[in-house]
Amino acid sequence: MTPERIGIGAGSDESVLWIGRGVLDDSSQYLVSPSGRWLVVSSRNARSAAGRVRAAVGGTAILDLEIEDSEKTKTLDAVREIADRAIAAGVRRDDAFVAVGGGVVTDVVGFAAAIVLRGIPWNAVPTTVAGMADAAIGGKTGVDHPLGKNLLGAFHPPRAVLIDPSAADALPERDYRSGLVEAFKGAWIADADLSARAESRVAAILARDGTALLDLVLGAARVKAAIVTADPLDRGARRILNFGHTLGHAFEAAGGFQDLRHGEAVAWGIAAALLVSRDRAGLSEADASRVRSVLERLGPFPEPVRSRETLRSLLVRDKKATAGGLAGVLLESVGRARVDESIPVDEWLHAAELVSLSGVETRPP
Amino acid sequence: MTPERIGIGAGSDESVLWIGRGVLDDSSQYLVSPSGRWLVVSSRNARSAAGRVRAAVGGTAILDLEIEDSEKTKTLDAVREIADRAIAAGVRRDDAFVAVGGGVVTDVVGFAAAIVLRGIPWNAVPTTVAGMADAAIGGKTGVDHPLGKNLLGAFHPPRAVLIDPSAADALPERDYRSGLVEAFKGAWIADADLSARAESRVAAILARDGTALLDLVLGAARVKAAIVTADPLDRGARRILNFGHTLGHAFEAAGGFQDLRHGEAVAWGIAAALLVSRDRAGLSEADASRVRSVLERLGPFPEPVRSRETLRSLLVRDKKATAGGLAGVLLESVGRARVDESIPVDEWLHAAELVSLSGVETRPP
Repeated sequence: MTPERIGIGAGSDESVLWIGRGVLDDSSQYLVSPSGRWLVVSSRNARSAAGRVRAAVGGTAILDLEIEDSEKTKTLDAVREIADRAIAAGVRRDDAFVAVGGGVVTDVVGFAAAIVLRGIPWNAVPTTVAGMADAAIGGKTGVDHPLGKNLLGAFHPPRAVLIDPSAADALPERDYRSGLVEAFKGAWIADADLSARAESRVAAILARDGTALLDLVLGAARVKAAIVTADPLDRGARRILNFGHTLGHAFEAAGGFQDLRHGEAVAWGIAAALLVSRDRAGLSEADASRVRSVLERLGPFPEPVRSRETLRSLLVRDKKATAGGLAGVLLESVGRARVDESIPVDEWLHAAELVSLSGVETRPP
Repeated sequence: MTPERIGIGAGSDESVLWIGRGVLDDSSQYLVSPSGRWLVVSSRNARSAAGRVRAAVGGTAILDLEIEDSEKTKTLDAVREIADRAIAAGVRRDDAFVAVGGGVVTDVVGFAAAIVLRGIPWNAVPTTVAGMADAAIGGKTGVDHPLGKNLLGAFHPPRAVLIDPSAADALPERDYRSGLVEAFKGAWIADADLSARAESRVAAILARDGTALLDLVLGAARVKAAIVTADPLDRGARRILNFGHTLGHAFEAAGGFQDLRHGEAVAWGIAAALLVSRDRAGLSEADASRVRSVLERLGPFPEPVRSRETLRSLLVRDKKATAGGLAGVLLESVGRARVDESIPVDEWLHAAELVSLSGVETRPP
C-alpha cells in the first residue's frame, strides 16, 4: 500500500509525514540521514516497532539505545545521557537520530538532536496513538522541569515522521484508549466530516480495526500538519490544539502525573470545556452530547481531582494566565473551535466541579 | 557619537550589531525585550559593564545573576543553573536575557535562551575583544563536553549585540592582547585595507587608543557579519573564520586549556598556517612576514606543546578530519583566505614543529 505523504515547512526545515500500514517495514525508504548513518533510540514499550526499524536500516546504526518512556524520565538528564552516548559513538553533523516510541521518546530524542553539534537531523517513529495523531508532528521537542511541563526544549522538526497504525496493535488497552482522545481532539477542533466518520466507527476503532484507525489517525495528522504549517513557532494559531488542555493539564498535575494518563486528563478537560463552550461559544447541546458520548465510550476514565483550591493554584500558574483570566479553546460546533482570550478562572473551576463522563452531569447541591 | 548599525539576517531571527564608544550607557535604546523585562547574566570580570547595563535597564530586571567566565564553567550544568533561575523568576516567552561578559558568558547565556520555553530572545554585550570581534556575533551558542569543545549548543542569534570598545579598558593585559588575535584574524582573512590600517597602528591599539581599537573591532565585526550572513548555519563559507584554528585548537587542548589562552593558541595556529600557506596557497614571504610581525608584537605568547604524538591524536579527532587529511584555512595574501579541503596531518605537524614567533624560525636539526 502506498502511504500518504504530507509535507510541512520547506528547505532544511522540511518535515515529511508518511502515513500508512506497513511504512515501518519500508522505513529505509522514508527515514532521512544525509550520511546514511543512524542513531536509534527506542523505548522498552516499542520493541516490536524498533525491531522493524532496525531491520530496515540494517548495520548502519552507530548507536542503538533503549530508554524509559514515562513522564518522569522526560528530563534534561535523559537528554544529556542520549547526547553523551551519541558523542561517544562519534556522531557527525550529517548523521541522524531515529526515535521509536511514545511522546516522551520523541520529545527527548528530538531535543537531543536539537542540541548535539548544534543540531543534527532526526526522524520520529511514534508508536502511540497520541504520538501519531499529535505529539510527533510539529517540531516541538522538550523536557519537563520541576516547576512545570515542557519548560525546556527547542523547535526542531524531524525530517521524517513514520506513522504506521499497526504499531498501535501492541499497545496496552488503557494507553490505546487514552491516545485516541488526542486523535479525536484533532477531528473535533477542525474537521466535521472526519468527526462524523470517526464517531460512527468508535466500535471498530476500539476493536483496533486497521482501516477505521488509519482514517482517524490520518485525518488528525492532517489537521495537526495544517495548523503547524500556519504557525510553526507557536505564535498564535497553534493554540487551538490546546482544546481540553487548560483543565486537562491541571487535572493531570493534581493527580501527580500518576493517577491519570495525559489523554485521560485531556478527556476530562474536553468534557469540562464543552460546558464552558455552551455558555460562551454557542455550542449546541446536540454537539456537546456527541463529543461527550464518544469520550464516554473511550473510557471509563479514573475520576479527576476536583478540589477548587488545588485546581485554582495550578490554573493561575498556567503560561496562558493573565490578570483577566485564562486563554482557552472553546468549541463552537463539532469541527470548529476558537480561542477565547480571557475566561475567568472561576468558570473553569465551576466546569471542573460539574463535569461528568458517566452520562449524568453532577449538579451542585 | 552615533554608533554603527550592522544588521544580520531578517525577521524574528534578525540580529542587530550596535558598535561605538558609549553604546553601553545608552543600552536601553539598543537592547531588545518584547515585554520590557530583562534577565541580566554577567560575569565577575565584567562588573563595570554590567553596572552600565543595569543602570540603563533600570528596575525591570526580573533576574540579575553573576556567573563564572572561564572555559571550565562552559558546561551544560551552567546552562541548567541559568534556566532554573530564569524559570524560578517566572520567565515568559517575551522576556529577554542580556549576557554581559566574555565568550563563555555569551555562549552559555545564549544557549540557555535557546532552550528556556523553547527559545526566548537574548542580547549580547561582549566585554572582551574576542567577543566583540568574533564570539558574540553569528548566533552560535553552546557548551563544552568532556569529549570536546562546543559539542552541545544551538544556533540562536541574539536580537542585539552591543559592542562598546570602552568595555575593553578594564581587561587585564594578557586577555586584551590575546583577544586582539581574533580581531586581526578577521582583518587578515577578508579585508586588506583594514589589515594595512590596523598593522600601522599596532602601537596605538596596544595602548588601547579608542579610535584605533574601534576601527579594528568595527572592521572585524563587519567581516564576521558578512560571512555569517552568507552562511548562518555553518554549512560552508563560515569555515574561513577558522583561520589558525586547526592547530590552534590542538595547541589549546594540548596545554589542557590552561597554558594558553584561546587567542594565544590561535596566534600560534595562524603562524603555523602561514608556513602551510606559503607551500600550498602561494602566500608571499612579504605577506607572511607582515602577519607574523603583528603576532610577535601582540605577544610574546607562552610556547605551545609541539609533540607530534600529542598533536596528531588531537588533530585526527577534529570534526573536520577525513581520510585524506584535515580541511584547513590558508592565506593567499593579506586580506584573502581560502579553505583547502584536505591537508595531510603531517604537513600540520611539520608546521607545528617549525613555527616560531620570536622572529627566527626553528629549523629541524
